[in-house]
Amino acid sequence: MTRLDPRDGYAVLINTFHVAPERAEELMTLLQRATEETFRGRPGFVSANLHMSDDRTRIVNYAQWRSRADFKAIFQDPAARAHIAEAGKVAESFDPVIFELRYSDQAETA
Amino acid sequence: MTRLDPRDGYAVLINTFHVAPERAEELMTLLQRATEETFRGRPGFVSANLHMSDDRTRIVNYAQWRSRADFKAIFQDPAARAHIAEAGKVAESFDPVIFELRYSDQAETA
Repeated sequence: MTRLDPRDGYAVLINTFHVAPERAEELMTLLQRATEETFRGRPGFVSANLHMSDDRTRIVNYAQWRSRADFKAIFQDPAARAHIAEAGKVAESFDPVIFELRYSDQAETA
Repeated sequence: MTRLDPRDGYAVLINTFHVAPERAEELMTLLQRATEETFRGRPGFVSANLHMSDDRTRIVNYAQWRSRADFKAIFQDPAARAHIAEAGKVAESFDPVIFELRYSDQAETA
């Protein structure tokens, strides 16, 4: 269970992968494995959340890191770089962008 | 506080707005107001979560709806349509896509 709360102050990575629909499940499996084998063990990792679009042309990873520096450090990590290169071969493109969560609103009954 | 859990089975809207950096705060304020005045009162609304990119060229709304039908119904709602049109004038573009949350992983200490 991942918690979204602006007060946590995490660096939010929203990484959108474009993918051919027939390779979407392969990419989803690869990203799950990368999370479990590598990213979750890295300093500052908080969460990863993988989403499949209804039309199967996009996968979005919504990931939380303690800080921007912790996130950037993974690009120096050989195992993480290998996973990123592997995902880059299955995806048509990917676009990692860092955000700040500024505002959350919930239904009364949620 | 928003909860991400694949077992909830929500329709996840990830709407990416591209915006000129000097209009990013105006758009953020407009989207907050639209959420509070209109979307949060609509049937099936679960949450909205507004994110600003570090370079201020994108705002992402990560929103949860009970079902795809509930989300689609807002396009028939005059007040919601007015807010969408207003945001479309401030943003350079926007791209609402519906996803399924398939997988979540958290750090042990999160």
